[in-house]
Amino acid sequence: MTNKQIITIAGGGSTYTPGIIQAVLNNADRLPLSEIRLYDIDAKRNADMFLIIQYMLKKEGFKDVVISSTEDPKTAFTGCDFIFSQIRVGGMKMREKDEKIPLSHGLVGQETCGLGGFAYGMRSMSGLLEIVGYVQQYAPDAWILNYTNPESIVSEAVRRQYPKAKMINACDMTISIEETIAVNYGYDRKNWIPTYYGLNHFGWYTSIYDKELKKDIMPEIIEKLTTQEMQVADFNAGDKTWQEAFSMMSVITKNFPQNIPNNYLEYYLYPDMVVEHSDKNYTRANMVMEGREKNTKEMAEKIRAGATEDVLNFNFGEHGQYIVDMATSLLNDERRRFMLIVPNQGAIPNLRSDAVVEVPAYVGATGVEPIALREPICDFHKGLMEAQVAAEKLLVDAYFEGSYQKALQAFTLNQTVPNAQVAKKVLDEMIEANKEFWPKLV
Amino acid sequence: MTNKQIITIAGGGSTYTPGIIQAVLNNADRLPLSEIRLYDIDAKRNADMFLIIQYMLKKEGFKDVVISSTEDPKTAFTGCDFIFSQIRVGGMKMREKDEKIPLSHGLVGQETCGLGGFAYGMRSMSGLLEIVGYVQQYAPDAWILNYTNPESIVSEAVRRQYPKAKMINACDMTISIEETIAVNYGYDRKNWIPTYYGLNHFGWYTSIYDKELKKDIMPEIIEKLTTQEMQVADFNAGDKTWQEAFSMMSVITKNFPQNIPNNYLEYYLYPDMVVEHSDKNYTRANMVMEGREKNTKEMAEKIRAGATEDVLNFNFGEHGQYIVDMATSLLNDERRRFMLIVPNQGAIPNLRSDAVVEVPAYVGATGVEPIALREPICDFHKGLMEAQVAAEKLLVDAYFEGSYQKALQAFTLNQTVPNAQVAKKVLDEMIEANKEFWPKLV
Repeated sequence: MTNKQIITIAGGGSTYTPGIIQAVLNNADRLPLSEIRLYDIDAKRNADMFLIIQYMLKKEGFKDVVISSTEDPKTAFTGCDFIFSQIRVGGMKMREKDEKIPLSHGLVGQETCGLGGFAYGMRSMSGLLEIVGYVQQYAPDAWILNYTNPESIVSEAVRRQYPKAKMINACDMTISIEETIAVNYGYDRKNWIPTYYGLNHFGWYTSIYDKELKKDIMPEIIEKLTTQEMQVADFNAGDKTWQEAFSMMSVITKNFPQNIPNNYLEYYLYPDMVVEHSDKNYTRANMVMEGREKNTKEMAEKIRAGATEDVLNFNFGEHGQYIVDMATSLLNDERRRFMLIVPNQGAIPNLRSDAVVEVPAYVGATGVEPIALREPICDFHKGLMEAQVAAEKLLVDAYFEGSYQKALQAFTLNQTVPNAQVAKKVLDEMIEANKEFWPKLV
Repeated sequence: MTNKQIITIAGGGSTYTPGIIQAVLNNADRLPLSEIRLYDIDAKRNADMFLIIQYMLKKEGFKDVVISSTEDPKTAFTGCDFIFSQIRVGGMKMREKDEKIPLSHGLVGQETCGLGGFAYGMRSMSGLLEIVGYVQQYAPDAWILNYTNPESIVSEAVRRQYPKAKMINACDMTISIEETIAVNYGYDRKNWIPTYYGLNHFGWYTSIYDKELKKDIMPEIIEKLTTQEMQVADFNAGDKTWQEAFSMMSVITKNFPQNIPNNYLEYYLYPDMVVEHSDKNYTRANMVMEGREKNTKEMAEKIRAGATEDVLNFNFGEHGQYIVDMATSLLNDERRRFMLIVPNQGAIPNLRSDAVVEVPAYVGATGVEPIALREPICDFHKGLMEAQVAAEKLLVDAYFEGSYQKALQAFTLNQTVPNAQVAKKVLDEMIEANKEFWPKLV
């Protein structure tokens, strides 16, 4: 019998917390729970989320589970077993700037890709390193399951400062792509063994073996993608930006039909089309603030006002389940297979070994065991990835060294950026916009 | 006493031939000459050049040197000792298209860089492979000194088809940069030991040791570059495009002051500024056709008409001397040091070993011995170079495999190209414009 676990959510006030907790509760047989702690630096958001989770626990009948919220790291982490990290340094207000500043220069304005992603990366490194530092101090045996974005950048930073940290870096985008494909074209992804490689938000499938059909179905999916655009799956229904992202997968696949691409490659291969479809005055940050964030606040208000009807109204998707599957795989040595973000070290044989890559990996009681690919990657992917890895490394250098020059090199090399002149302009504006958050660059 | 040598100029009709022959004659003590053969597929140009070189030999008093021109490869190559290759498949008329088609889409339009360079590369591979094939057949012991552009691409192609070819790939751009720096800032480059790495037309100096001053003078040159733009040296005087290129070296150095850049990096780092300064209706090909080519034709006409005054009117520069120094270094085991284009094989330790790179190398009786750098290159340069190497390899794949897909990948990955959409447009136009010259792509 596994001990009951204490889970701390770093960034507890996030609108993703209910989805994660719901998934934890749904899997209570594999992940028995004694306590949930919400840790956030924003006391108001954290208090709102406390009410929501307390309400949820009651509704689902988990009366023995202790729930608390705190802004004190010692209280949050001491003695905990798992940390689920989903912090967002600077919140949606800064995400809005990440998106709008590049767009105002005609460049991709996106949360994790392009220069917006780099700006966010510079903020995110400090926040996540702080969390990892607390965990080293207060709960050195706990596992950190990290999905704080932009993941390639923050994992590179953590690896440098805390090379021994017990941390798994995961992104649910591949799951989301697979689910969307399966729903659109009539497959059951439970039968799939997908092989994929890349950087985070920057990768390609090389095969999708279907156990039931007993073959690699990637060729037929590519055929379908090139003839029939996918509709977004339920959990993103009605979301225009996701619909566009999945439509762009068809454009990419028509021109480069060797692989199923991660939809995020649209930002690197078709930045012009993406910018054309963007509203530079109303970005995804605005949608989230007026949608998910407002919705969450309203739920808390209803509970505070003593609502008697069911106030919970979420569209969870696969995100929470993915994290819980990782936790149970660690806890029960389940040896499940995930796409994870790991130091390359030869997993992709012809990519620099010090890159942080996303590849299939098994998770068991000892942690992560990445799969080493059997084939070198093609030159097209290698060229794109090497440039992007170098850009990300330069950004992490810039963070640790406080180097303006390295930041300018990173911004210039980012594969969404057409020239060094605009890279410098955006960098200078980002420095100004982020002065509360970034290290001083000289 | 060294045997008298037979030199065949492949692309004999080129306007560069007189400069090379002049340098050969100036170094007759180290490179004794019995015969010069001009080989060209353009009989008219070749006949014109025959007259000019015949006139030059007479004027310089080399009455024992045999001069001939031929369009027959067997006659051209049988028994020769050196082949100096400077062919330009498609001539200036096609160069004009290389420059103007990308410019019409707002992209860099340049002979060797960007998509114009890739279009030229696709033509150039077939021409140079043909020459190398003839040499294997008719003069297998001869050395080919190649400066046919775009060099990275053609050397990669030759290496694949004729891995054992006795061929040295050299570019005089570094010499030209060094001479311009020396003249502008008052140095004597004869005292210099420069260290440099990169791809062809895509590299950086890491030091310039001055034997007389007994120190690395690169830091002071960088300081000068950032405060005072260089003027073009004598041999390019009055040439607006070269003046702009050397002015751009100051822009690059101001923003990235760690190294002296090859001026060609302007196309990759500041494509927007370059395009802004370009006249899409009158490019460098037009300048050359109306300048150097017209001038050469006129000289031949004057000789044909029995001119008695001195008709030779060239501005030679360092180009010919550079090639002759290589030939004499091979012939007399002089072990001179040049920047040469060679398979990497670890010379740049943290760049893919199958890249074709430009690094310092010694040349002696056994051929080329590249220097292995003692330090890994920085991530900024690595990122740029890896993307560009991959693009070049894909282009060579496209050539050998007749693959449209590889060509599209190459065009997309070229670091002057902002997106896959415009890459495809330019590729499709280039296929149409080059149908006489390119292999069929399917």
